[in-house]
Amino acid sequence: MTIKVVIAGFKGKMGSTAVDMVKSDDQLELAGLLDPFATEKEIDGVPVFTVKEALVGFEADVWVDFTMPKVAYGNTRFALENGFAPVVGTTGFTEEQIAELKALSSEKQLGGLIAPNFAIGAILLMEFATKASKYFPDLEIIELHHDKKKDAPSGTAIKTAELIREARAFKKQGAEDEEELITGARGAEFNGFRIHSVRLPGLVAHQEVIFGAQGEGLTLRHDSYDRSSFMSGVNLGIKEVVKRKELVYGLENLLS
Amino acid sequence: MTIKVVIAGFKGKMGSTAVDMVKSDDQLELAGLLDPFATEKEIDGVPVFTVKEALVGFEADVWVDFTMPKVAYGNTRFALENGFAPVVGTTGFTEEQIAELKALSSEKQLGGLIAPNFAIGAILLMEFATKASKYFPDLEIIELHHDKKKDAPSGTAIKTAELIREARAFKKQGAEDEEELITGARGAEFNGFRIHSVRLPGLVAHQEVIFGAQGEGLTLRHDSYDRSSFMSGVNLGIKEVVKRKELVYGLENLLS
Amino acid sequence: MTIKVVIAGFKGKMGSTAVDMVKSDDQLELAGLLDPFATEKEIDGVPVFTVKEALVGFEADVWVDFTMPKVAYGNTRFALENGFAPVVGTTGFTEEQIAELKALSSEKQLGGLIAPNFAIGAILLMEFATKASKYFPDLEIIELHHDKKKDAPSGTAIKTAELIREARAFKKQGAEDEEELITGARGAEFNGFRIHSVRLPGLVAHQEVIFGAQGEGLTLRHDSYDRSSFMSGVNLGIKEVVKRKELVYGLENLLS
Amino acid sequence: MTIKVVIAGFKGKMGSTAVDMVKSDDQLELAGLLDPFATEKEIDGVPVFTVKEALVGFEADVWVDFTMPKVAYGNTRFALENGFAPVVGTTGFTEEQIAELKALSSEKQLGGLIAPNFAIGAILLMEFATKASKYFPDLEIIELHHDKKKDAPSGTAIKTAELIREARAFKKQGAEDEEELITGARGAEFNGFRIHSVRLPGLVAHQEVIFGAQGEGLTLRHDSYDRSSFMSGVNLGIKEVVKRKELVYGLENLLS
Repeated sequence: MTIKVVIAGFKGKMGSTAVDMVKSDDQLELAGLLDPFATEKEIDGVPVFTVKEALVGFEADVWVDFTMPKVAYGNTRFALENGFAPVVGTTGFTEEQIAELKALSSEKQLGGLIAPNFAIGAILLMEFATKASKYFPDLEIIELHHDKKKDAPSGTAIKTAELIREARAFKKQGAEDEEELITGARGAEFNGFRIHSVRLPGLVAHQEVIFGAQGEGLTLRHDSYDRSSFMSGVNLGIKEVVKRKELVYGLENLLS
Repeated sequence: MTIKVVIAGFKGKMGSTAVDMVKSDDQLELAGLLDPFATEKEIDGVPVFTVKEALVGFEADVWVDFTMPKVAYGNTRFALENGFAPVVGTTGFTEEQIAELKALSSEKQLGGLIAPNFAIGAILLMEFATKASKYFPDLEIIELHHDKKKDAPSGTAIKTAELIREARAFKKQGAEDEEELITGARGAEFNGFRIHSVRLPGLVAHQEVIFGAQGEGLTLRHDSYDRSSFMSGVNLGIKEVVKRKELVYGLENLLS
Repeated sequence: MTIKVVIAGFKGKMGSTAVDMVKSDDQLELAGLLDPFATEKEIDGVPVFTVKEALVGFEADVWVDFTMPKVAYGNTRFALENGFAPVVGTTGFTEEQIAELKALSSEKQLGGLIAPNFAIGAILLMEFATKASKYFPDLEIIELHHDKKKDAPSGTAIKTAELIREARAFKKQGAEDEEELITGARGAEFNGFRIHSVRLPGLVAHQEVIFGAQGEGLTLRHDSYDRSSFMSGVNLGIKEVVKRKELVYGLENLLS
Repeated sequence: MTIKVVIAGFKGKMGSTAVDMVKSDDQLELAGLLDPFATEKEIDGVPVFTVKEALVGFEADVWVDFTMPKVAYGNTRFALENGFAPVVGTTGFTEEQIAELKALSSEKQLGGLIAPNFAIGAILLMEFATKASKYFPDLEIIELHHDKKKDAPSGTAIKTAELIREARAFKKQGAEDEEELITGARGAEFNGFRIHSVRLPGLVAHQEVIFGAQGEGLTLRHDSYDRSSFMSGVNLGIKEVVKRKELVYGLENLLS
């Protein structure tokens, strides 16, 4: 049996990529489309709506939402109240809103997902690096991005470093009498380990965590080439929420 | 408080490497040494024994065993019966022997470890690869070893592939009309994915599992340079068994 | 002083990418555009032509050609006869045509370039790998492409292998008693070395040549993400041909 | 015909490794051994000497020298005067001494090599990186060493950077409004590009130069695992000097 999916915000970049993803998966069926900017009545036989209220009583299983912060909360509430399990990639939810939506989902016995990051690979990398750091306290992070990126280290590298800090026994790495012949050679210091930021044209978004121990090394690397990488996570979200009875925050909670 | 360690088989390669490891860790204390081939009475103040029976009543916490298959079972039994938590790297135990030793350890309320592989990095790689294969069914394994190695793929690659087969939904990878212009280009086929074996001088033992999905990639790599890599695992084993009340088989059961 | 460039075939994918490249480089000036399918008379002040004859007497330095095999020869001849140094990415020239165009360019004292491959990185990789193979006869090639690719090994890998064959003293690599537990593990055999083809979604076009010798390794890797990678080579070609007095075949002849 | 080799300083680490290398190559013959600390008269049929003067009139083609700075100049002179082509790995020669030995070699019509670094892979990496930087001005260097290393960046990284500086058109890389959220993230700045130093247990000596351009990347990596890596260079030196008629300084001058 296929899972019937509504996509809210289908005119946006993420929304339209989600449309392609749903169409290309035999286990999913594109049931409806919603976007206030839509002018079509239907696309390839799929009905198009411009206001969410028109979907009251509509038959579908999952509500994928790539809209805007100001409407996402209302949309997610609406989805839960009307029997659609929400899979939401829009950002900007407050902790209170998340708690409220969780309670509502539980009451309605509907699964759901709100995720700031849908890249399964990035999430697995963080999880694996965190676990490895328990056994290999010596590590360095190298993150590599295109040369238009302004901030260094990247947000993902800092998030990864924070997760490692919680799991790893503190250790100040490197030789005691270590000396930088050129300032910055040893990278950014974070909790006793180092983070290096490479910026080059041609690169997109890449991260490597290298662990070293006597006689061995472990290297974990994630490469992200474009936004389509998020779609594996959206796909997984759709297939998981229909099996569950409560909304979760963070894709990592669906990976077990 | 330090953990007092006896090392059985200290004249062998693994045993003597274990001696160095224990000496270099402040949390451990080398309490005794056992080897039928020893001629010394003591080494640096540490008493040396040639028969295990001489250790009845000896004060120590952990019994590290790198001896030979024919004596390892007897040694492990002896350790448990005399209050030493065993950490055993010798191979050749039958399933019945392991079950029996587990039961004995439980009765004696002693932790213990029998491990065919002490390389934490190799074990983490297998665990991470297995988990990632649930979400990224498209993967290939590249293992790289020195050019004296006879068999291909390596035992570790086959073990990794078997673990992945259990976790991953079967998928025949590659283009449907794929064609090898030179036989073997696409590597060894295993459960729909491919394994490639590289053999070059200078290499030791390395393994990479590469996952690909739309717009992203995840690469996990383990490098093993020499036998000292096993010592992180022995060290972890020593520190874990003293906290436990039952023997386990496989280092992965101490990684949590 | 800027170099004035005409682009023939500007409506095609490569041609339009070349337009963007020329516009974004201060040392280059887009002087004219040619395409039989063009309907505009000019674009942003640049005159547009639909037949090459309209360019007789036109003032420009370089003629970039991304047209079609059947017109490329005529176009290149026309360029040389009218004082434009040609930079041609169209394929399908015969050896006789190339020899003839070389002679014509020499007579006209004009530089020129006909190149089947404009990716500088790929060309450098081949050159470096060829040179390294003289000193490190032990090597393996791993090429990685998207999983829609039909043929394995890739054309670039075979080209690289052929160049290495010419430079390297023949050696049958690997252990003498090497044994494949699963057929294909050791890859495709070429002149005593091995080529491995990885196919995964998310990948584009990548190639690694790994050299091993006692106690050391050398790895050369090229990653190609999209067709824009060809533009560094076109840019280099434009800047080099204006300094020269004879047409060359192959971008490698402009790298010195 | 085999090349007859004398090894001076055969009791040292490098010298004894050279003995093994010569013995394992069918094209070479170990003809004599020299070391003031030797007590043997012969080893496996090879005559052993303790003073160089005893080798006047000795029949051999090449003089491999891994002795000490204070005797190396005298040894090299002696070798040339007695018809042995010198291959010298001892350091500490002045420019005047090198010029003098070059002149002497030329007069004697003997080839010779004095090399501060015999790792062919390291030398090829520098040469390739230097050439690539002409076409890809955007690059970063990552060097990785064991965590006992005091200085960062490594000497090899600085040497590589200097060679690149000479070949590459100056460019200040990275985003104009680049900002380090943690100091040092972007590494050491050298001539507009960046160098990153990773220090981890288990590593030996590794260097990567990563080039990026629109849509493509080129990565060159050298891994050095132990001193035996120098032996490929010594081997090459022995085979090249017998074909030449003048001494050169630097192994790169024998790679063509």
